[in-house]
Amino acid sequence: MPTMGYLHQGHLSLMRVAQKTSDVLVVSVFVNPTQFDPQEDFKKYPRNLRRDKKLLRDLKCDYLFYPQMKDVYTEGYETYVEVGKSTEVLEGAFRPGHFKGVATIVAKLFNIVQPDVAVFGQKDFQQAVVIKTMVKDLNMPVKIVVAPTIREKSGLALSSRNEYLSNVQRKQALALFQSLNLAKRLIKAGERGSKKIEDKMRKLILKQPQARIDYVSINNSETLEPLKKLKGNILISLAVRVGKTRLIDNIRTKV
Amino acid sequence: MPTMGYLHQGHLSLMRVAQKTSDVLVVSVFVNPTQFDPQEDFKKYPRNLRRDKKLLRDLKCDYLFYPQMKDVYTEGYETYVEVGKSTEVLEGAFRPGHFKGVATIVAKLFNIVQPDVAVFGQKDFQQAVVIKTMVKDLNMPVKIVVAPTIREKSGLALSSRNEYLSNVQRKQALALFQSLNLAKRLIKAGERGSKKIEDKMRKLILKQPQARIDYVSINNSETLEPLKKLKGNILISLAVRVGKTRLIDNIRTKV
Repeated sequence: MPTMGYLHQGHLSLMRVAQKTSDVLVVSVFVNPTQFDPQEDFKKYPRNLRRDKKLLRDLKCDYLFYPQMKDVYTEGYETYVEVGKSTEVLEGAFRPGHFKGVATIVAKLFNIVQPDVAVFGQKDFQQAVVIKTMVKDLNMPVKIVVAPTIREKSGLALSSRNEYLSNVQRKQALALFQSLNLAKRLIKAGERGSKKIEDKMRKLILKQPQARIDYVSINNSETLEPLKKLKGNILISLAVRVGKTRLIDNIRTKV
Repeated sequence: MPTMGYLHQGHLSLMRVAQKTSDVLVVSVFVNPTQFDPQEDFKKYPRNLRRDKKLLRDLKCDYLFYPQMKDVYTEGYETYVEVGKSTEVLEGAFRPGHFKGVATIVAKLFNIVQPDVAVFGQKDFQQAVVIKTMVKDLNMPVKIVVAPTIREKSGLALSSRNEYLSNVQRKQALALFQSLNLAKRLIKAGERGSKKIEDKMRKLILKQPQARIDYVSINNSETLEPLKKLKGNILISLAVRVGKTRLIDNIRTKV
């Protein structure tokens, strides 16, 4: 299971899923520079190898793969895996090059570790779709499992980046999940127009003084195509900056 | 060993090298559409599966992998492997997208067949460099072996595309290897200026009435960077159209 470390209960929950489907659990910890924009938080991304090791030991993880930069990116590397249209929307539209970095590092880790199964979290749902697409398109012999998002009691999705939030911001960040739940209620009440739902979600989020919306979007959860009218398998997802911290969350539903 | 079929003694010689280094020989035959330009010869590329099968049986090849298009390119595929600067010169400059198609199909075949060793021919030397780069950059667990070009007695490098040549053109095509030998003699006599050597090669080739030169080039054989002054490991390579048939050839040397 590939991770960028600074492990939390969300990661551990994915690892337990991996342990159920596999004989041997390998967890990699590598903060991958190529998936960060130059102005993004690569350098200050939180790291705590000692705590990660303890958590992995307690979980009875079989192997930790903790490569150095030069083990993964050989000098003068010039090769990337590029996934197409599924990388162009949502996160891909706001973080150019992000999924190129993600697909490339995951391809590398798959080639090194040679897993039979790899588990990804639903919180990064588009990432899981991109990886599934890569695996299918490049005929990689790996089964991709997507496991549920783990949340605090408050509803806030676990994320290493929550670390950046002040107490005040942490409260404001609850608006992300609240807006997803609002969408769910609207759909349950019969609303099928994406724009109406998205607008109400935006309004709810923007009540928080430090919240800035990158996107609130309703898409087909398999193709990631934006939906005007809700139909079939649906992904409701959003990216919101609370202060300087960029958070994402999503839920899936069917109509 | 990946091939596009229409096997000749050049392929068979690579397979014998593969047999020496491996317990099991798998040969794939697949004419890969994504490495041809729209105006190139994908549709008329020569095919003869029955003869290929007989040759493979005689050679005691263990497995033929003969996939159908849909086995290799799943519907709606959108993922490519893109290798950088080593694909931008020589063949890459004249065949845009060619090495993107090559790298992608080879990555797919590697993922399906999972070879320990793969053999490529020196005739497509840049292809071998691109594949080696991809393997290194994506940490693929495959050893790449480059085996020598096989030639007719006349010096003409074996190629499935020789099939397209008339008898007259076949004689004119000898100018490719003759110009490479001229370069070798000039270097042996002390010439170190690339331009002088390339000009003399061009002159020799253009004596043939149906010959049109795409490039004649002297490059570092590891980085593929063009060389003004000859030094170190050298690749002398060329692409020449004889009538409508595009032929390539190369030799390596050291100074």
